[in-house]
Amino acid sequence: MGQRKWTVGVDFGGTNIKVGVVDGQGKVAGEAVLSTRDHATPSAFAEGLDEAIDQLADRLGLTREGLCGAGIGAPGLIDVRRGLVYRLVNVPGGWPNVPLARLLEQRLRCPCAVDNDVNVVALGEWRFGAGRGTLNSVYITLGTGVGGGLVINGQLFRGITGSAGEIGHMAISLDGPRCACGRRGCLEAFVGTAALLRNARHAGQSGGRILARLTRQHRGRLTPELISQAAQAGDQAAIRIWQEFGRDLGLALANVVHLLSPERIVIGGGISRAWPLFAPSLMTTIRQEAFEVPANACHIVRAKLGDRAGIIGGAVLVWEQQRRIDD
Amino acid sequence: MGQRKWTVGVDFGGTNIKVGVVDGQGKVAGEAVLSTRDHATPSAFAEGLDEAIDQLADRLGLTREGLCGAGIGAPGLIDVRRGLVYRLVNVPGGWPNVPLARLLEQRLRCPCAVDNDVNVVALGEWRFGAGRGTLNSVYITLGTGVGGGLVINGQLFRGITGSAGEIGHMAISLDGPRCACGRRGCLEAFVGTAALLRNARHAGQSGGRILARLTRQHRGRLTPELISQAAQAGDQAAIRIWQEFGRDLGLALANVVHLLSPERIVIGGGISRAWPLFAPSLMTTIRQEAFEVPANACHIVRAKLGDRAGIIGGAVLVWEQQRRIDD
Repeated sequence: MGQRKWTVGVDFGGTNIKVGVVDGQGKVAGEAVLSTRDHATPSAFAEGLDEAIDQLADRLGLTREGLCGAGIGAPGLIDVRRGLVYRLVNVPGGWPNVPLARLLEQRLRCPCAVDNDVNVVALGEWRFGAGRGTLNSVYITLGTGVGGGLVINGQLFRGITGSAGEIGHMAISLDGPRCACGRRGCLEAFVGTAALLRNARHAGQSGGRILARLTRQHRGRLTPELISQAAQAGDQAAIRIWQEFGRDLGLALANVVHLLSPERIVIGGGISRAWPLFAPSLMTTIRQEAFEVPANACHIVRAKLGDRAGIIGGAVLVWEQQRRIDD
Repeated sequence: MGQRKWTVGVDFGGTNIKVGVVDGQGKVAGEAVLSTRDHATPSAFAEGLDEAIDQLADRLGLTREGLCGAGIGAPGLIDVRRGLVYRLVNVPGGWPNVPLARLLEQRLRCPCAVDNDVNVVALGEWRFGAGRGTLNSVYITLGTGVGGGLVINGQLFRGITGSAGEIGHMAISLDGPRCACGRRGCLEAFVGTAALLRNARHAGQSGGRILARLTRQHRGRLTPELISQAAQAGDQAAIRIWQEFGRDLGLALANVVHLLSPERIVIGGGISRAWPLFAPSLMTTIRQEAFEVPANACHIVRAKLGDRAGIIGGAVLVWEQQRRIDD
């Protein structure tokens, strides 16, 4: 079994670094978790990753010779061609201008690729998850930040700067609430977690009785989960919050359908757990706002890979880069 | 010279059908014009085109054996892979479900390709005009309709339905004026010719004195050209109309920059003649509304090929299809 080929995917988050061994079918054969705080410098990360890979190889009976490469998704602005981190967010120091791919290659002695975490998840969902089998698939992640990634003609499309797919900052209104980016009217300012909680606080004050009670039971700590619970329990204000969430998301996605006419839009991220609550108004809005032919041809679906999307996507990133070199 | 290779591009409009001979450098060596009314059925069009090609070949000393193919841009919904017209707009009967490419190939005895006129112009501007040398270029045409075409990774991107690039119907506002498509808030409802004239009529009533005088001199027939003349003559209301035009266009294009981070956006169509009047507010808006890195990397430029863009793009369409077959 020593000759078996395997690939490592790494999901570099603000709290944890998840490392997984991925086989050619996109299955995660084994996983390890490192603390981001303990690996908060590039060299500590390279060292910790090297050790984790050794341990995983031992556990799974694999040899380092069979390792095709390691692909890392990290939160921030990254030049994937040069494997260069411009800056990371939620990571101490931000790693400005760190040539991370080269650094990792020296330590791990295998090809390494680095890209923005949302792009990597988009790639994983496209290849092995809810976007599987399509040529053109748009991924959007819903959470504190609202991000996206585009697969076009079977390739991740990054634009000239690597920043393509910023669906969260497409404006859906000439004014609207202020976004974390400083602008007004961004989709994220309508459907990001902060907006959701703000709407819910307002609703709790103005009639959302079940929601208000649930919030009190949680010592005033309102969460998206509580808004979902309240809606499921019949709280009209909470139901309306999710309806409006679906409508606002639908306005942005209708613009994406106008521009790209994709086969599929995959919706992931923590907030996508509320799918049954916002999907009806989302679908209605897209059918109303996009043209009939591209709207009918575009399937809107939930992401499938869950917490492992980043690991799986990391492996796909390695294969994508190797294919590019082979061309 | 009989062996020389040449390609025909056809710009099929509601009034005229322009036929041109295009060489490998994108130069139009000769042109002919047919009346659309006299060639308003597929067979009359095929016959007229065949004769026009013969005459052009005679005039230019070319042989039909050297003809690589003919590429047609027509206004409507077209399945480019099958060369099938779903329907044409502004053409009698609309040619529903006409297999136009096959019909033309039978008559012309050379490969024929058909696509939407805006896509064809986008292709021409990308290959030989203002998008030249880029991998990713977005084209937008400004006029009665506001349309677009996307070149991604050096290929026209049509999406799954052939309808990608509908920039004119991306919404920039939750409400806003009613669009010709029946929806509200579309870019076209803000910057299409009808919106421009409506704004100008309002301005003429509310203080645009130069504009009002010019309009009277033209027997009340207001045109975009007159609004430009009034602005150039210092009419503050007319100046403001173009500033707002640039801002509204900038809001939509900032969304395009967020999503695609293209290298270039090429602005064409009749209304683009007012470029000096709306470009400053357009640029300001994009810099404000898009992120700095992709905004700086995206050059917004005027189209270069003018009235010949459709003919030149038609030839590029032929070459694109032949490359696809060769692959």
